[in-house]
Amino acid sequence: MNTTNASAEQRLKELAIRLPRPSTPPGTYRDAVQAGNLLFLSGTLPVEEGVPKFLGRIGGELSVEDGRRATRLAALNALAAAREHLGSLERVTRMVRLTVSLATTSASTRASRIQRQSPLATVFGADRTSTRVVYGAASLPVGVCVVVELILEVSM
Amino acid sequence: MNTTNASAEQRLKELAIRLPRPSTPPGTYRDAVQAGNLLFLSGTLPVEEGVPKFLGRIGGELSVEDGRRATRLAALNALAAAREHLGSLERVTRMVRLTVSLATTSASTRASRIQRQSPLATVFGADRTSTRVVYGAASLPVGVCVVVELILEVSM
Amino acid sequence: MNTTNASAEQRLKELAIRLPRPSTPPGTYRDAVQAGNLLFLSGTLPVEEGVPKFLGRIGGELSVEDGRRATRLAALNALAAAREHLGSLERVTRMVRLTVSLATTSASTRASRIQRQSPLATVFGADRTSTRVVYGAASLPVGVCVVVELILEVSM
Repeated sequence: MNTTNASAEQRLKELAIRLPRPSTPPGTYRDAVQAGNLLFLSGTLPVEEGVPKFLGRIGGELSVEDGRRATRLAALNALAAAREHLGSLERVTRMVRLTVSLATTSASTRASRIQRQSPLATVFGADRTSTRVVYGAASLPVGVCVVVELILEVSM
Repeated sequence: MNTTNASAEQRLKELAIRLPRPSTPPGTYRDAVQAGNLLFLSGTLPVEEGVPKFLGRIGGELSVEDGRRATRLAALNALAAAREHLGSLERVTRMVRLTVSLATTSASTRASRIQRQSPLATVFGADRTSTRVVYGAASLPVGVCVVVELILEVSM
Repeated sequence: MNTTNASAEQRLKELAIRLPRPSTPPGTYRDAVQAGNLLFLSGTLPVEEGVPKFLGRIGGELSVEDGRRATRLAALNALAAAREHLGSLERVTRMVRLTVSLATTSASTRASRIQRQSPLATVFGADRTSTRVVYGAASLPVGVCVVVELILEVSM
């Protein structure tokens, strides 16, 4: 794993990670917009087969481990949206910015713990990791515990 | 409406939408900064004639319908700032990223319902819609219920 | 001060501002990623000599003045990360976007008051100020009261 020369698509295979089916957003917005070399992705939720998972707050109904799994699932949905737009993740030259917004209870402010291991770093490799911002949100769409927001650099 | 070939300025006229007067930000920041083809706009509030409207929380003092009207007003202020910077919205080639931050009560977590119909999609047309992120914020400047943050792609 | 022609590095000297030592982020993300002319920085915290300061909520344990000092410290950490990546802040052609996320008590919603004076505007000069977004977060990493997120335009 994490072989420097392995591509993102190869790594997904090696790690036996199957990306979720990309969602179809409602008509008023879209999953991905490319401007020059930057690919902006809409906020992705921990959705499986179209169903939002991990509803609630980390530190309340949900454990820190739930939060990690939810973040991983949301991140894989972001990758699925990127692949749908690009045709292949081979076109990703680097991750630029990862924003992770978490719904936690007030007692559980240590949001960064939840995002310690990033599935994205595993897929893209240690030399293409991104900047990161982690927030605690007061609430998130549909009551999920995490939303991931990704900006990628892509080849034209 | 929504004729594919109509321009943003034409659509505003057809829809009889008058953009608010652009605000004058305090000296330490500005309403719009262009870097290459990307135009970043400062967070815009639901302001009318310089006065912040829709103070409070959606689900509390404010209804979901108030939230929709506030989001529309904040989005129109973003367009006003973009037009002020660009001279004309004709120079907008597409919307890239729309971030909507909402102050809701904890009982009213379904933030995405509020942002279902976007005035921006109406103005720019279905083929130039943007990516989107919706958050529930713990609080927002001056106590407003929504802040809109917009990134546009523009022609040079 | 604020001489239009003074460079960012000159201003830091004139103002006797010493930037903090840049932090070493854990392996899964990095402090700065450049994509074309845009430099994205990870969210920076009010950290001094590696120790997070200003823990708590503004309006609770912390005063508005604490919030200002914390925001200044977090912003200086962002500059330190930018200088570490670029070699010199001379390469910064303008600030593009400043996002300030604050942990406040619900009674203290006027987040924008805290961010009234920006150390960044002082360092880069009034002609290179950025767009700005201010949010109230429900919680922030390690319990700090502010996270600053910066995008800069840089010369290649």
